[in-house]
Amino acid sequence: MRDEFVDEDEVKLFIGGRGLGVKILIEELKPGTDPLGPENKLLFMTGPATGTAFPTSGRFHVITKSPQTGGIGDTNCGGTFGPELRFAGYEGIIIEGKAAEPVYLWIREGEAEIRSAKRYWGKGTWGAEDGIRKELEAPNAKIVSIGPAGENLVMCAAIINDKHRAAGGTAAGAVMGSKQLKAIAVRGTKKLPVADEKKLKEAVQTASNMFRESRITGQSLPTYGTAIAVNIINKYGLLPTRNFQTGVFPAAEKISGETIAKTILVKGKACWGCPIACGRVIRITQAPYQVEGGGPEYEAIWALGPQCYIDDLNAIVKANNLCDELGMDPVSYGNTLGCAMELSERGKISKEKLGGLELKFGNPQAIVELTWRTAYRLGFGDDIALGAKRLAEKYGAPELAMHVKGLELPAYDPRGAQGQGLAYATSNRGGCHLRTYMIGPEIFGVPQQLDRFATKGKAQWVKTFQDLFATCDSAVFCKSATFAIWVPEIVEMLNAITGWNWSSDELLKAGDRIYTLERLFINREGFGRKDDTLPKRLLKEPMPEGPSKGHVVKLGAMLGEYYALRGWKDGKPTPEKLKELGLCKYANL
Amino acid sequence: MRDEFVDEDEVKLFIGGRGLGVKILIEELKPGTDPLGPENKLLFMTGPATGTAFPTSGRFHVITKSPQTGGIGDTNCGGTFGPELRFAGYEGIIIEGKAAEPVYLWIREGEAEIRSAKRYWGKGTWGAEDGIRKELEAPNAKIVSIGPAGENLVMCAAIINDKHRAAGGTAAGAVMGSKQLKAIAVRGTKKLPVADEKKLKEAVQTASNMFRESRITGQSLPTYGTAIAVNIINKYGLLPTRNFQTGVFPAAEKISGETIAKTILVKGKACWGCPIACGRVIRITQAPYQVEGGGPEYEAIWALGPQCYIDDLNAIVKANNLCDELGMDPVSYGNTLGCAMELSERGKISKEKLGGLELKFGNPQAIVELTWRTAYRLGFGDDIALGAKRLAEKYGAPELAMHVKGLELPAYDPRGAQGQGLAYATSNRGGCHLRTYMIGPEIFGVPQQLDRFATKGKAQWVKTFQDLFATCDSAVFCKSATFAIWVPEIVEMLNAITGWNWSSDELLKAGDRIYTLERLFINREGFGRKDDTLPKRLLKEPMPEGPSKGHVVKLGAMLGEYYALRGWKDGKPTPEKLKELGLCKYANL
Repeated sequence: MRDEFVDEDEVKLFIGGRGLGVKILIEELKPGTDPLGPENKLLFMTGPATGTAFPTSGRFHVITKSPQTGGIGDTNCGGTFGPELRFAGYEGIIIEGKAAEPVYLWIREGEAEIRSAKRYWGKGTWGAEDGIRKELEAPNAKIVSIGPAGENLVMCAAIINDKHRAAGGTAAGAVMGSKQLKAIAVRGTKKLPVADEKKLKEAVQTASNMFRESRITGQSLPTYGTAIAVNIINKYGLLPTRNFQTGVFPAAEKISGETIAKTILVKGKACWGCPIACGRVIRITQAPYQVEGGGPEYEAIWALGPQCYIDDLNAIVKANNLCDELGMDPVSYGNTLGCAMELSERGKISKEKLGGLELKFGNPQAIVELTWRTAYRLGFGDDIALGAKRLAEKYGAPELAMHVKGLELPAYDPRGAQGQGLAYATSNRGGCHLRTYMIGPEIFGVPQQLDRFATKGKAQWVKTFQDLFATCDSAVFCKSATFAIWVPEIVEMLNAITGWNWSSDELLKAGDRIYTLERLFINREGFGRKDDTLPKRLLKEPMPEGPSKGHVVKLGAMLGEYYALRGWKDGKPTPEKLKELGLCKYANL
Repeated sequence: MRDEFVDEDEVKLFIGGRGLGVKILIEELKPGTDPLGPENKLLFMTGPATGTAFPTSGRFHVITKSPQTGGIGDTNCGGTFGPELRFAGYEGIIIEGKAAEPVYLWIREGEAEIRSAKRYWGKGTWGAEDGIRKELEAPNAKIVSIGPAGENLVMCAAIINDKHRAAGGTAAGAVMGSKQLKAIAVRGTKKLPVADEKKLKEAVQTASNMFRESRITGQSLPTYGTAIAVNIINKYGLLPTRNFQTGVFPAAEKISGETIAKTILVKGKACWGCPIACGRVIRITQAPYQVEGGGPEYEAIWALGPQCYIDDLNAIVKANNLCDELGMDPVSYGNTLGCAMELSERGKISKEKLGGLELKFGNPQAIVELTWRTAYRLGFGDDIALGAKRLAEKYGAPELAMHVKGLELPAYDPRGAQGQGLAYATSNRGGCHLRTYMIGPEIFGVPQQLDRFATKGKAQWVKTFQDLFATCDSAVFCKSATFAIWVPEIVEMLNAITGWNWSSDELLKAGDRIYTLERLFINREGFGRKDDTLPKRLLKEPMPEGPSKGHVVKLGAMLGEYYALRGWKDGKPTPEKLKELGLCKYANL
């Protein structure tokens, strides 16, 4: 173990978090590195905003090479771990190599210790969190851990913090498992450096007012959580149903945020320092899905619900909760389940594999029982553990996997939101709503209303979102903040913290630099224009019904414009662009 | 690895199987050996009957020092593994030491090989069976394996053969797990030696007729499986309900063998060479408990049903099936669950431990979800994994554990069958119906009807059963055979196989010798008169209702007579008795 230091100049180029992470990864990893081998690295990063008064800054970012996609693996997570890591005096952690036996890391101010995790191996994330806190006699330690899914190298494995916050997607949990690293515990009380306390206080005051006044961050999310989106997205006919066979789910109301609030909600719950508190605490007292604890996000409800044609809210909530405990991302898990159900209904999967479990749309038992089977790779769970892309390939129908670059798509059918289609296709990490949330302008009208079926001008919006979200993940605060504040407010707070004097353009240019560097990383691994695409279903099969009826994603109409705006050619940055961004050395130019 | 040989003289003293096993164990194990340490040994034994034309001889016996009781651990299992081991040229296997990494054993005629089982570790028994057959390209290999329960040293861990036959009780599965031995695969085609083929054929013919003519083995068991007992035992008011709080279960009909036959039964299934075929193949198509495969025995139905006050047959069948896959004995598991439910209802277990799961009598979710949690030791499953005795001690109410010598009691409340009470109390392996089945004469009238509330004369019956069953487990055939045939028929077939010329008395004397040697083994580990007892509830609390109302077990009235018949004093064999049986050397006399 050793401490490393980063030059201020590098920080100014990449901000921190995701940006600094991809810089370190591309410098230190050879192309073609086995993501599950000891040569891969796993980075837990914070940024300059993390743990400060910047609202929603209770987060951290994980960066690694993804075993699921073979490209950039990165994922952002709330909870309490990010701030605590900074309070302990560290901006990030780089995990290298592989332990000979299961271990965990215990970090205090200026101290780090590797300890045996043998007693926690094979157990869930909750047992690990509780056990480690007890073992260390550190009730206030903040912990990230993996469950059996990560240990067993499952492709939907996540890293869990605070029992219910997940760093999901791209199988970062499996990388942690491959290193036999069960958990990281941190504890610290250091004060964070802020360049101009007074200026920050004023800027935070302005931002806080905007959080409060925003309809979304001030009302909808606190009251209903992210699940407020269920009814809205369904109303516009883009709630993906039965593995994206349609965008209309008849029973949306039964699984909506409003229904949760009326039935099983105990209270809302905030990540560290968040004024929104979109997290849910729920309680279900009715068998066979009794559960108490964290409630599902919108994306999880969709993946375990409409994607699998399930309208049993209790089953969805139970499966989601088990995902947290077993260390799985419910979005990738549920998307893959829906794919398996379609494969099964099309006769591609023999009944012998299933032990009596009917793998068909609408079976709530499947989404619950397969959490266990997937995490421990028992029976058909061993196949779900492959993720949608490899599963569909194994059963001879690759076109039925709803993914981009190997990452399962989330909860919006882009046939009903063209810009989101371009966003999925061009996302460096794979099909995802967390690199660009075009649903904001295309559906919610935030920051302004766009025509969701139009293609013109969407490329610029997608690029701006990609660059902006890259800065969110690098300064490290929550993307939900952008429902309330926008670039000027972010720059103002960031300048106050760092003492920089950035303009809005400079912030977005840093985002452009980070996004382009990620693209260099995946280019190096063989990704190019051929991978900036969507499942055939979304490009060729018109939406069969509802308010988005008749539409496909007109990707071709947007992709050229996007590449031009980015200064990319065939999905690869041009030398001119790299020069502009100061990235030539990463492309050996 | 090496071959060992046993003298014919020793075989004549101990027959084989269980008898020879305990002889080897007491000779080779030091007193005080850690049952989960490398010094413990794990024996898989067959006997002279195994795999011959002797009806019901498709079995094997496992002998070890029990980590659950600290005494003799032994358990008998059907399926196909026993005969196959003999066909491969071996009478038994002695596992010593501990592997450095997970392994399995592959035995063919005259050959044995240790192979890596890393890819199966953490998985279920079914995955191990299927995977190993595929890996070895040996579709006809017969396999015993453990599931995660055995790997995780769970106290209800069993060893599973043919996916649904369990060597349960006394945690033999945990011993196998402690040695990192995932499985044993065998394949052989050798012909077994029979001294007098013609005489055996005649004797088998006689026995077969008796199997066919018996009401129990010819009709009830083939038609309804062992679950035929549910309604009968309930009718007599000794079906233990809510952790032995009463002997009447109002909904017995819903979970009976008759109901199974009418609803979910696909067909019966026989172990190797069995004319009874009491095994069940079931199919449940209704969520949330869809399942297809092995159905539950009477004991499992009881443990997961009335013991936990569950009348949902589907939940019982699902939980039982998961026990098979995860490698658990449903009897010990269900008994422990019922104990946990009573502890919980009495306020001994805090809700925090349960994550929203209501641990109360009648909750079907509990019996299903806790299979996973127990096998993998997640959440409260880590406590169920202790077994009833240690669980109740942990929560400060040892009197609520329904066990004898640490082994959980099975499915008959002895307040309604006095002889069975003496049988439980004096069983060397702990509370169990497989050392003496007084339910035969006390309830079913087989081999003759006794007054179930009487105590006089029961000691002799118990001793005879114990001795007879010791010979069943040592010649190695099924105890259910004794519903149809008795000592003379058994001796006739055994003599034809071995060429011996035993009388009925000589057979029972061998049983006496085996039973007494086991007693010496447990005496050496500290067991004595104080352990030949029953839970206080059965001795002090009169049955509150039903046809057994008002009764307690009058153990004192029977125990003295029993010791006298055995030639024991204070639970220990006298020197005179040891001399008579030729066992002096095992007591250092």
